[in-house]
Amino acid sequence: MAQHVVIVGGGFGGLTAAQELNGADVEITLIDRTNHHLFQPLLYQVATGGLSPADIASPIRYILRRQRNVRVIEDTVREIEADRVVTDSATIPFDQLIVATGATHHYFGNDQWEDHAPGLKTLPDATRLRAQILGAFEQAERTGSADITFLVVGAGPTGVEMAGAIAEMARHTLRRDFRAIDPAAARVLLVEAGPRVLAAYPEKLSRKAERQLVDLGVEVMTDTTVTEIGPGRASLVTAEGEVEVEAQAVVWAAGVRASSLGEQLATLGADLDRAGRVRVDEALRVPGHQNLYVIGDLAAVEQDGKPVPGVAPAAMQMGSYVADRIRGMTEAPFTYRDKGSLATIGRSAGIADFGRIRFSGFPAWAAWLGIHIFFLIGFQNRILVMIQWAWSYFTRNRSARLIVRYDRNGR
Amino acid sequence: MAQHVVIVGGGFGGLTAAQELNGADVEITLIDRTNHHLFQPLLYQVATGGLSPADIASPIRYILRRQRNVRVIEDTVREIEADRVVTDSATIPFDQLIVATGATHHYFGNDQWEDHAPGLKTLPDATRLRAQILGAFEQAERTGSADITFLVVGAGPTGVEMAGAIAEMARHTLRRDFRAIDPAAARVLLVEAGPRVLAAYPEKLSRKAERQLVDLGVEVMTDTTVTEIGPGRASLVTAEGEVEVEAQAVVWAAGVRASSLGEQLATLGADLDRAGRVRVDEALRVPGHQNLYVIGDLAAVEQDGKPVPGVAPAAMQMGSYVADRIRGMTEAPFTYRDKGSLATIGRSAGIADFGRIRFSGFPAWAAWLGIHIFFLIGFQNRILVMIQWAWSYFTRNRSARLIVRYDRNGR
Repeated sequence: MAQHVVIVGGGFGGLTAAQELNGADVEITLIDRTNHHLFQPLLYQVATGGLSPADIASPIRYILRRQRNVRVIEDTVREIEADRVVTDSATIPFDQLIVATGATHHYFGNDQWEDHAPGLKTLPDATRLRAQILGAFEQAERTGSADITFLVVGAGPTGVEMAGAIAEMARHTLRRDFRAIDPAAARVLLVEAGPRVLAAYPEKLSRKAERQLVDLGVEVMTDTTVTEIGPGRASLVTAEGEVEVEAQAVVWAAGVRASSLGEQLATLGADLDRAGRVRVDEALRVPGHQNLYVIGDLAAVEQDGKPVPGVAPAAMQMGSYVADRIRGMTEAPFTYRDKGSLATIGRSAGIADFGRIRFSGFPAWAAWLGIHIFFLIGFQNRILVMIQWAWSYFTRNRSARLIVRYDRNGR
Repeated sequence: MAQHVVIVGGGFGGLTAAQELNGADVEITLIDRTNHHLFQPLLYQVATGGLSPADIASPIRYILRRQRNVRVIEDTVREIEADRVVTDSATIPFDQLIVATGATHHYFGNDQWEDHAPGLKTLPDATRLRAQILGAFEQAERTGSADITFLVVGAGPTGVEMAGAIAEMARHTLRRDFRAIDPAAARVLLVEAGPRVLAAYPEKLSRKAERQLVDLGVEVMTDTTVTEIGPGRASLVTAEGEVEVEAQAVVWAAGVRASSLGEQLATLGADLDRAGRVRVDEALRVPGHQNLYVIGDLAAVEQDGKPVPGVAPAAMQMGSYVADRIRGMTEAPFTYRDKGSLATIGRSAGIADFGRIRFSGFPAWAAWLGIHIFFLIGFQNRILVMIQWAWSYFTRNRSARLIVRYDRNGR
């Protein structure tokens, strides 16, 4: 009888693993908490009104509709045992398990900050942030108050993209829309504990990114830590001392922590690193288990003494590798091939690092846009929508600027 | 000094009034609870995954960005006095007031039904219904249960469109997506207290609509009333007696009640009809007040002994008329010009009534689609997105099939 492969998580890693097992003599069950695969790298576009949720998310079962050996279940996995997983509604036995549940934001022991400084990992995160950012402008127009401050904590790719997009929106998109206030007067602070933005990039590109942010009107504060976040305010410590900031919206982009399913694997003997990631062997397995694979942001993988980064291409490579192993097509250890990375900073600025080739400004932005549209169309098959978006983005319009608030009953 | 015109509500009536006052020597303040104008006639498309919220909603201040004599405020009006309105954050005096706050769903004294049978008037209503409908299929796939029943209460245009779209989705869109269940086996019940569907149309078209619904697989139950709605179930009374129905989702499309601001106008002497609408004079004013106008679904207007229907064209005509009056361009009474009406039933079926010309089936559907795309593009200026939608709709794909659930904190 065909082996039963259970995949937990329908992100880049889990979905790729399922797709690469197409036609293999296995029965696959893919379990995800939501019904959709989410193109997380563009979530900040939803948070700033450039794209709609459905533009960056597709039902997983729709993506896999033509693959007959996979069954998709919307459910939450609570427990993992050596040969079965327990979900909210069932116990599902497996021969092989692939855990690919990713990471969530992390407040370093200050979970109470989450209410005032949401992170950006899910569609509700994004639409909530969108309502907060746009709501700040609405409130200012209502009261005639000129003080609008946005605070973005953490200058990794997400923080830089958010800060750039908010500044872009304030300076350009909303320019004509208000009467009592000047949206361009809004302050956008980008706070980073380390000495430079986009620390994963070479220092020279980092400097270029910072200059592009400053040109957009973002106030970049490096070597600055956040010591307290409350409703509408935050305390910062800079080289000069303490600063109190009033902010209408605070975006948390400072820390991620691996999914809590790592702790379930720990009960089976897995070793977790400080961020909660599962240390895997060279075949991406939990040491001591031949049939428990961990891939994507949940896996702690080292290569040449450096951690493999928590990015979509790495997750997809891991998914593909594990599928090959299960099909018996490889016995070699996993190796990560870095194909380069790109970050965007508002409209028509960005940096690109392809190893030997490094560039910044408009070419980097254009490369970023092209690659993202290419991948999105692959998932979505909605060519015209993406072309329309590229055009709006180029002309600085943002058509999904909705404030939708949900009351306590989830409505 | 220029007169100050306050418009409450940015739907079809209020927005048209504001636009028709473009260039007039007045200062306009438009107040709406949300930041967006909503194209309500296509809300059922959001509820069934055919369109995204941002496809049918645009920020009001964006629509009016080039009109210099209007200021838009996102706020909720709580009280109306003879010369001012009181909102959550301010008291705003006016010379002329236009109240255009529309209608909400109405449970005829059974407000507890709302939790189990949501109506369809706002974007959160639509995304919540979308999650319920798609969630019913997810749950069936999870448990392997074959019983899926959707109950639509009320066979006016909204109920007919919802029932048709759900049946269409079950029979065609989702056909390949599931493994444990056959989505086409889902039952769609359309319950109507009166003797026929779409009672506002001529009887012959009504019969055609019913036949088209039955062809789509909808079970049409006329002369049937709902006596109780609980979690996952409803009690119906038919000509044959009582029937208990288990339903995974119940859609309420049976009754509307005018906005509660009508009661505020009642304190100023206005007379309300049974549905809470304000009886206005022939100039659409509250009798006894020269400067209080009521338009759209909140206004009870009779013409030739028949009520003017609560549809977008009527609201727009009223908005335009009141703007003309305020500009001093007319002293004549308001007259409603019925330009015909269209209803759609799933994909490629519908009925059209243009008075002398009546037709049904594919031509009615094509006319409906063309007219709605034309108006949507007017509001949205997103031609490619709409063309893409028309194509997907024609090919029966529905690309916005997201289940997004918000927890108690509104996330």
